[in-house]
Amino acid sequence: MTDTEPSQQVTRWLARFAERLAAADSAGVLALFEQHCYWRDLVALTWSLATFEGKPEIQGMLERCLPAALPAAFSLEGEPRTDAAGVTEAWFRFETGVAVCRGQVRLREGLCWTMFTCMLDLKGFEEKRGAQRGMGVRFGAVKGRKTWTDDRREDAASLGREVQPYCLIIGGGQGGVTLAARLKMLNVPALVVDKHAKPGDAWRERYKSLCLHDPVWNIHLPYLPFPDHWPVFTPKDKIADWIEAYVSIMELNIWSATEAKAARYDDARGEWVVTVERQGETMELRPKHLVVATGMAGAPAVPDYRGRESFAGLACHSSDYRSGEAFRGKRCIVIGSNNSAHDISADLWEHGADVTMVQRSSTLVVRAETLRRFFSSKLYSEEALAAGITTEKADFTVASRPYAVMAEAQKATYVDLRKHDAAFYDALRQAGFLLDFGEDETGLSMKYLRRGSGYYIDVGASELIIDGRVKLRSGVEVERLTKDGVALSDGSLLAADLIVYATGFDPMEIWLERLISPAVAAKVGHIWGLGSGTRRDPGPWVGEIRNMWKPTRQEALWLQGGNLFQARFYSKLLALQLKARMEGIETPVHDPKDMGRP
Amino acid sequence: MTDTEPSQQVTRWLARFAERLAAADSAGVLALFEQHCYWRDLVALTWSLATFEGKPEIQGMLERCLPAALPAAFSLEGEPRTDAAGVTEAWFRFETGVAVCRGQVRLREGLCWTMFTCMLDLKGFEEKRGAQRGMGVRFGAVKGRKTWTDDRREDAASLGREVQPYCLIIGGGQGGVTLAARLKMLNVPALVVDKHAKPGDAWRERYKSLCLHDPVWNIHLPYLPFPDHWPVFTPKDKIADWIEAYVSIMELNIWSATEAKAARYDDARGEWVVTVERQGETMELRPKHLVVATGMAGAPAVPDYRGRESFAGLACHSSDYRSGEAFRGKRCIVIGSNNSAHDISADLWEHGADVTMVQRSSTLVVRAETLRRFFSSKLYSEEALAAGITTEKADFTVASRPYAVMAEAQKATYVDLRKHDAAFYDALRQAGFLLDFGEDETGLSMKYLRRGSGYYIDVGASELIIDGRVKLRSGVEVERLTKDGVALSDGSLLAADLIVYATGFDPMEIWLERLISPAVAAKVGHIWGLGSGTRRDPGPWVGEIRNMWKPTRQEALWLQGGNLFQARFYSKLLALQLKARMEGIETPVHDPKDMGRP
Repeated sequence: MTDTEPSQQVTRWLARFAERLAAADSAGVLALFEQHCYWRDLVALTWSLATFEGKPEIQGMLERCLPAALPAAFSLEGEPRTDAAGVTEAWFRFETGVAVCRGQVRLREGLCWTMFTCMLDLKGFEEKRGAQRGMGVRFGAVKGRKTWTDDRREDAASLGREVQPYCLIIGGGQGGVTLAARLKMLNVPALVVDKHAKPGDAWRERYKSLCLHDPVWNIHLPYLPFPDHWPVFTPKDKIADWIEAYVSIMELNIWSATEAKAARYDDARGEWVVTVERQGETMELRPKHLVVATGMAGAPAVPDYRGRESFAGLACHSSDYRSGEAFRGKRCIVIGSNNSAHDISADLWEHGADVTMVQRSSTLVVRAETLRRFFSSKLYSEEALAAGITTEKADFTVASRPYAVMAEAQKATYVDLRKHDAAFYDALRQAGFLLDFGEDETGLSMKYLRRGSGYYIDVGASELIIDGRVKLRSGVEVERLTKDGVALSDGSLLAADLIVYATGFDPMEIWLERLISPAVAAKVGHIWGLGSGTRRDPGPWVGEIRNMWKPTRQEALWLQGGNLFQARFYSKLLALQLKARMEGIETPVHDPKDMGRP
Repeated sequence: MTDTEPSQQVTRWLARFAERLAAADSAGVLALFEQHCYWRDLVALTWSLATFEGKPEIQGMLERCLPAALPAAFSLEGEPRTDAAGVTEAWFRFETGVAVCRGQVRLREGLCWTMFTCMLDLKGFEEKRGAQRGMGVRFGAVKGRKTWTDDRREDAASLGREVQPYCLIIGGGQGGVTLAARLKMLNVPALVVDKHAKPGDAWRERYKSLCLHDPVWNIHLPYLPFPDHWPVFTPKDKIADWIEAYVSIMELNIWSATEAKAARYDDARGEWVVTVERQGETMELRPKHLVVATGMAGAPAVPDYRGRESFAGLACHSSDYRSGEAFRGKRCIVIGSNNSAHDISADLWEHGADVTMVQRSSTLVVRAETLRRFFSSKLYSEEALAAGITTEKADFTVASRPYAVMAEAQKATYVDLRKHDAAFYDALRQAGFLLDFGEDETGLSMKYLRRGSGYYIDVGASELIIDGRVKLRSGVEVERLTKDGVALSDGSLLAADLIVYATGFDPMEIWLERLISPAVAAKVGHIWGLGSGTRRDPGPWVGEIRNMWKPTRQEALWLQGGNLFQARFYSKLLALQLKARMEGIETPVHDPKDMGRP
């Protein structure tokens, strides 16, 4: 009988929860929650991505959102599971007035610790998949029949000219194409403009040795999973080819070799005026919505060191670095200690260069295998698949965790992780490497979510640093450049034939400044980060990634991007928000912490 | 208890079967079979595709093959099922000395009616999928590291020049690319040469309105299933785009715009000498094996009617027809009544032409919806998927049926099918259409397997014929052409601006005659067909499709092709045969009926 207890307990809890929600009795709902509770809502109730922490915040959300959302028709999905710590996790389905949704509750001693609610589909606008798929051809004889190719060509020829896209997406990387695919499935006319010559080139143009650091199980694009012989770690040109194929297979409208030059919102007409340059031709587009999907980093940031112009050798930013082939026997300095700094140092060494890395500040390092062992293998791996955890299930599981809860869990795991790799970390420190695990020891994922930088996933370069094959100068700053190389803050000089600035990127809001205006960029505010108050993630605490995939303070302006998990998962939620607006569905946004509105 | 009876019965039967096989006791094995029995073996025991009918044939096979094959380690796979007719169907796994195999037995009253044995993988050469997939990158620092792109480029640059492909595939349609994908997964160096400008063009160059007649569930290519929003019937340009993407994703080596001009087998060196013309350059390739995958039809066949040169209008073969756009208001004659004749007639009518179809001999017509209802929906449909019948399971189920048994089953189904569509068939006959259902009433599939022609899957043209919007002249032959049109055998004249010869194709062996020599073509003999002794399928009865996917009488010459099901399923078996030869595994071929050797 014990086996069925969690199920019965959850069933009872869910019934009471549903009943109190139906009665719009927020106090009654909160009586089912423990004091230290969270509610993460993705579009279902708030028409935004928002996490409410503690009873007062949740009560405020319920009072504002329940009357419009009308959540109902709750039913358990699958079997609840109770973990060793006594937390019972249960998935359920429910509906609002306009949408089909999924939720998850984590119960501790019969009370809700975390609640997760997420929109899946707008009723009446479900994706046409499986038994609902189209016929592809109309049987019978039809005068003036248009073929698939006729339709595709006419669509492509008129879009952006006679017919304006409902949604314009700037950037054709993984962010742009995943969103375009989601919108395609929802029949939202969308156009992607991308400055590169063809789809995938944003990856192709990166340095030669680049490989994705996330394993295959976590990098699927929506609708078209990788075949099961796809390698664990994808080389950059292979993901580029995949994206190119994906654009064709998903029938996405993408203008390559097209740059967005300027955009302004026409309040009176409720549409954007976007100037683009397409293969020499300047055109004006008028989409209702504008999505910036140019990547979570802004333009390359190169520090303005004194004497930069006097350096007689070659210098480039990491984003312009391609390969170490030309640098056999040359003296190379890599300034910085993030992922690309490490990858480039290793690549130069592999090509026979004499390499010195200049580490200016402490860096988080985790070995790729260790990362898999402690994190991704539980949700994204063959073992997870064998245990029935599909990519979709894994994605929802990740999404169900409030970021504050995630931070605590990460911190605990890093204690074990650091023990597991103690010898490795000792050796790195011994070599003079300045290590950190985040200001509050919460590790890589949190650093990624807070600032998207400051770490290296070790696939080989650390070994080179440990044994001195790649030289390291740490805890120093670059004082100035000379004709021959770099003068460091400790007074030493480093001679160089090549300097690589692995010095990161401007924040994303720079794109908005340049494309739209400083005023709009300022109104929208900081993009990315949780408001943790740690370096490069200014507070106050928001509990969600700021401004991503959800309404911003600029009407009809959206940001899409992130890693492949985020591009895949959040693209659907962003697409639903756009679809709802296109169909004239009421979308009362409640996102008090991020948007500063009640 | 009755539920477990079939399972127990099969388990007992399989144990005895395995025991008698292990003892090489063919009489003991046959004691477990009913008198009227079949054994279809795909590569597992015979190193060919062969069906043995009745006890004497099976006994001969066992006596010859058992000592080398050593089948063992039999175990049931899944639950046996007993149908309404009392036939119990059970799948099992087993091994031979060199391979892992799957089998199926159909028992009637405790005795074997049909036995099916099929090779799955060569031991030690399994495909690297799932948990066995490659890493994609080598962690650690490696001097002189080659990236994925370096390897791909070097591979592509050297193949056919410094490095000869083990296997050369002529034809880059679905047959060529599916086999190339199978060989890629088995690490058999293969090169595809294709005359078209780019992958998929063989489809793109067909007439505009063409759509695949098989539904999506039955047209998957290996390893990369269509996404679940793919339309039921795929337009020809969409399948072309898919094939193009497939070639990229599967990393196939394909030379487009390359024509194979001549081939001869160098017996002394045990390799082919193949002359190809690649974008103007004449080259000589020396593969160990040559696969002709140019489609199951030979060159377009245009009857040599008297007066052809005198016709003043336009004339083309159906394979050169593109669209009816230019023929609004024009008088068009379509000679023939197969699939393309119907599709082209409808396309011309849809574009406002005045169309007459000249039906020279009776034709089998089945409505596409009816075909789905009576056949494919049981194995290839959403309902089948919901019932756990994956494409793989469906493929093996189809393959498990001996063709002789299939013919009987089809015949029975067609009785019902014709009742279901009686009104439709009456109306067609009323319009003067000459109908047949195969000489022995076995229907479309058998006609396809026997001659690959003589039928129309109705997607709309029959309605036009029934109500006279497309005019029909049936039971007449073309006597001669005149300046203005066609003179028919009944003395009438048909004026025409356009004549389309939907008159089919030469048999496949024509390719061999032209590419290799008439002598080799004659040695190989007829390609395709079962030996049914019906029209265009000369006897004697073979019980397998002649010369396809298996050893031919010409050393190291193979034929690959067929519809998408066949290209998908049999490509694996052909690839295993090639891989075994590459690895030096003994492959004693036993195929007495088709190859005429013991």
